[in-house]
Amino acid sequence: MAKINKNFENLVPSYLFAETAKKTNDYIKAHPDKKVIKLGIGDVTLPLAPIVVDAMKKGCDELGHKETFKGYPDYEGYAFVREAVAGYYKSFGVTVSPDEIMINDGAKSDAGNFTDIFSEENVVLVTDPVYPVYVDTNIMGGRKIIYADCTEENGFCAVPDKNVHADLIYLCSPNNPTGSCLNRDQLRAWVDYALENKAVIFFDAAYEAFITEDNIPRSIFEIEGARKCAVEMCSLSKTAGFTGTRCGYTVIPHELEVEGVNVYKRWYRRQSTKFNGVSYPVQCAAAAVFSQEGLKQIKENLSYYQENAKIIAGTMNELGIKFTGGVNSPYIWFKCPDNMGSWDFFDYMLDNIQVVGTPGEGFGENGKGWFRLTAFGDRNNTIEAMERFKKLIKG
Amino acid sequence: MAKINKNFENLVPSYLFAETAKKTNDYIKAHPDKKVIKLGIGDVTLPLAPIVVDAMKKGCDELGHKETFKGYPDYEGYAFVREAVAGYYKSFGVTVSPDEIMINDGAKSDAGNFTDIFSEENVVLVTDPVYPVYVDTNIMGGRKIIYADCTEENGFCAVPDKNVHADLIYLCSPNNPTGSCLNRDQLRAWVDYALENKAVIFFDAAYEAFITEDNIPRSIFEIEGARKCAVEMCSLSKTAGFTGTRCGYTVIPHELEVEGVNVYKRWYRRQSTKFNGVSYPVQCAAAAVFSQEGLKQIKENLSYYQENAKIIAGTMNELGIKFTGGVNSPYIWFKCPDNMGSWDFFDYMLDNIQVVGTPGEGFGENGKGWFRLTAFGDRNNTIEAMERFKKLIKG
Repeated sequence: MAKINKNFENLVPSYLFAETAKKTNDYIKAHPDKKVIKLGIGDVTLPLAPIVVDAMKKGCDELGHKETFKGYPDYEGYAFVREAVAGYYKSFGVTVSPDEIMINDGAKSDAGNFTDIFSEENVVLVTDPVYPVYVDTNIMGGRKIIYADCTEENGFCAVPDKNVHADLIYLCSPNNPTGSCLNRDQLRAWVDYALENKAVIFFDAAYEAFITEDNIPRSIFEIEGARKCAVEMCSLSKTAGFTGTRCGYTVIPHELEVEGVNVYKRWYRRQSTKFNGVSYPVQCAAAAVFSQEGLKQIKENLSYYQENAKIIAGTMNELGIKFTGGVNSPYIWFKCPDNMGSWDFFDYMLDNIQVVGTPGEGFGENGKGWFRLTAFGDRNNTIEAMERFKKLIKG
Repeated sequence: MAKINKNFENLVPSYLFAETAKKTNDYIKAHPDKKVIKLGIGDVTLPLAPIVVDAMKKGCDELGHKETFKGYPDYEGYAFVREAVAGYYKSFGVTVSPDEIMINDGAKSDAGNFTDIFSEENVVLVTDPVYPVYVDTNIMGGRKIIYADCTEENGFCAVPDKNVHADLIYLCSPNNPTGSCLNRDQLRAWVDYALENKAVIFFDAAYEAFITEDNIPRSIFEIEGARKCAVEMCSLSKTAGFTGTRCGYTVIPHELEVEGVNVYKRWYRRQSTKFNGVSYPVQCAAAAVFSQEGLKQIKENLSYYQENAKIIAGTMNELGIKFTGGVNSPYIWFKCPDNMGSWDFFDYMLDNIQVVGTPGEGFGENGKGWFRLTAFGDRNNTIEAMERFKKLIKG
């Protein structure tokens, strides 16, 4: 008799975005005359850069001619993409070899699958609040999960605790959902902790392109020792609007070993067995992002979102509302006024000003009483939402 | 201290294609004047159909304009693709609902990941010879694997043994590597076995588009009862030359339950956590394949490969060499003449007639003394290879 993986029954049903969508749709149905502005979901809205579209179409054309047709791609991605990514790292002073880079169909795939190569015995540390994928994948794998608190007191930047032992550590900076960023010293503390505990850090750098301040590392590999204890995952989803195009990359330094096993080689063995590489036109598109002209073009979109973030953050400042993010991040994470609960505030905003955000509670215990807005919306809508917000709060 | 997944150490290092490539490249280096013909790898060589390229490029353009931009795709694939796949099934008489179809980035991903939702306690049955992915993924997951023999005696079609108990069963028909196909009665025997054992069959239909004979089912869902015990995986890789484009689909009937758990829902939960859907332009390309004009265009490529298969099979017949496949399959699996070993015959062919194939031994014990050629090569090269082969065998 076939037997099911019972670990799935330990998953907390996450109705976060389903629930916010349902409430929003119900409201729209009941109030068809009202203009609802959605600043809830972390999905981009601006189109791909022209150079990216052209490269992708060229890739399609190549597949349409026998002379240029491409069959199975390399599991690790074409060299021309890996070289482009390595060049991008170089542009902010980090040296990684193209041979340490694996191209994938999005950071979520690697974030979700990477623990395949680790034993179930590992103790996994995640922050609270947290991007749910880190938690759910390890529950599915039957691993013990412990939480490091991110709170108002520590600016939503968890600090390693020497009295707590962890084997695998997930860090996300700039953070989803809080927009907080680990500065160089804070990240160094985690690297030191990992080295002392012989732990491995999975560093999710999906939002690195939003970093504008010098003291915030764009890669964990800016920190000494990280090459011996960290894997970095990044994505073109937010960097270049690839949420629907699907491409990301993972960096696994040659030095990284676990119990004497080379992690890159082990992961390569996993990928070559369970994955067949990324679509050729998508890889062409990815390489175009990192060209000189590509970087220039994507900067326009990033600036647009950054300006939205400034508008939201400015509103919070003006109203004296505590928040993290907004700088170096497309997310603004703020304390619900008047000690309202996250979900109450969600309803309050929707009912009164028709602005949709995400209740912080959906990301963990420490998100209770906090709320997330995103900078990925339309400019005019963002401005209008903030005007409405000011009126609501000022009363 | 981080701990590695030790199951990987039970993997047999598979050097099959690395080894054949090395031997081939060494030969070419030593004999630059010789024309080597490669009929070894199961990768397609003809370009994508024009309608497919156009649809994919249109998808790229849509991503380049704000009005038509697409963000995160649905985890299960866009409805227009799932509806197209359901329509394709209908064309050969099988009814599946679009809600039972999940679109993925290739059948290998789902074949590799699907056991995530099953316990490690399951006994896994695979055939011998076998597509290595079924074996390796289950070794990584720590599951017990048993083998069902495919031999000359049973025409390389394994027969279920009532005295053997299995929980999860992998079947591939038309088969890789042997080209053999389960007819309706043979497949029914497996479905009956699965129902009796409350086992789940993973049916790999990646080569279904090559089926020409009526008594060979194109889908396991042509068999009564299969909806209660089977998951079907298929791919556009061979159907429409998508090896570099990357798109496949998995059918999970609503009726399929394991220990009272709905398999579709459980798999959806896995996918929504560890996967973020398929690239939009690729989904546009996939839908185009199943349009009326698309099916007409891909048929031309399929006919080309089928004609190659006929040429190879015809040669075997002419020489009186025992083989399976060639009909309903792009693979021709033949017995090495003079009781030669697979690897000896590989060297013999390379040295004497510069034709590259794949030693059957690389696919399992029962492949010893057998050899695989593929129909995916160029027509003239295939003809030339067979001319050389005839001379070699006739002596």
